Amino acid sequence: MTEKTALTPKTHTTPPARFSHGVRKGNILQVAGQVGFLPAEEGRPPTPAGPTLREQTLQTLANVKAILEEGGARWDDVMMIRVYLTDTAHFAEFNTLYNDYFGEQALTAPPAARTTVYVGLPAGLLVEIDALAVLG
Amino acid sequence: MTEKTALTPKTHTTPPARFSHGVRKGNILQVAGQVGFLPAEEGRPPTPAGPTLREQTLQTLANVKAILEEGGARWDDVMMIRVYLTDTAHFAEFNTLYNDYFGEQALTAPPAARTTVYVGLPAGLLVEIDALAVLG
Amino acid sequence: MTEKTALTPKTHTTPPARFSHGVRKGNILQVAGQVGFLPAEEGRPPTPAGPTLREQTLQTLANVKAILEEGGARWDDVMMIRVYLTDTAHFAEFNTLYNDYFGEQALTAPPAARTTVYVGLPAGLLVEIDALAVLG
Repeated sequence: MTEKTALTPKTHTTPPARFSHGVRKGNILQVAGQVGFLPAEEGRPPTPAGPTLREQTLQTLANVKAILEEGGARWDDVMMIRVYLTDTAHFAEFNTLYNDYFGEQALTAPPAARTTVYVGLPAGLLVEIDALAVLG
Repeated sequence: MTEKTALTPKTHTTPPARFSHGVRKGNILQVAGQVGFLPAEEGRPPTPAGPTLREQTLQTLANVKAILEEGGARWDDVMMIRVYLTDTAHFAEFNTLYNDYFGEQALTAPPAARTTVYVGLPAGLLVEIDALAVLG
Repeated sequence: MTEKTALTPKTHTTPPARFSHGVRKGNILQVAGQVGFLPAEEGRPPTPAGPTLREQTLQTLANVKAILEEGGARWDDVMMIRVYLTDTAHFAEFNTLYNDYFGEQALTAPPAARTTVYVGLPAGLLVEIDALAVLG
């Protein structure tokens, strides 16, 4: 029996429902859909890092990374990154942000696979990202 | 060689294409996107449990659960739940239904991770859910 | 330590960002979201197989298959296929194409699970597909 553990970084706001920000069981780690909320502050509702794609993307990636690290994983362990944008016009800018971000992460393994689609998100949110990792 | 098996609860309507409602291979179990169709009745086309988010959500969760159980899994084994809604205005009600449902499932492990996005679905359908489980 | 390897068929165009067309680590293989781009030709930008759902679907499935094979997998190993269409009116035709395609693949295992949702895609693209495989 392998135990399933919840991954809940201290920086994260409480999920809006009965789900975990991330879970790990054996060598599989799943990160829930993250958005660009700033680190939680007591008494403050979840607050996006800013109105721009840049601010939200960088915060979202930081939020995903915090969950990976809480579970003992790194970006190098990530197999799949699912990106949900709200506007196809954001694709080029998002890719630049994505490339710059991962260029700074000192990866030693090949980058994860990725799917990017355009969906609706709650008002004010421009990007949501989740990730599946397999630990080595 | 680990065998891949199809998970086909007797209650389920025939998939509209060449896919399985669920598959299990080794300790990995994947549930296909489920919607709120009532248990199959011979001669009746797939029929939603009702027009409301509540009816469809509860039926959808029951349909996911039937596939998990067909594969020897429980909600406790689920790592990721992907929720597809059609209207951001449904988020709060959906979360209440979700929380109430899982509050009654006697989970002993942390809840699964989750991603919720807003997409198009076939006419009349308000919610679709799939799930990835890792058995213990 | 299991190594994560990138799966990059020679036929594929360069990804538009720092991600892999597919990755394999241990027995898990993830295919990135594929679209109906023709095999890469030097000096030509990524070019869809044609404007129709039929052309794009068949090319997309061929692109997914090439990545599976690059990683030593077959359709029989695929657990989950995620289908992103742009128009609910395409569902029936897509299913016919899907069924015909898999009818010709000489599968020996049950078909994969599947989720189909309707999203936005870059202009001119009608379908995107990704896949998760577990090798035997």
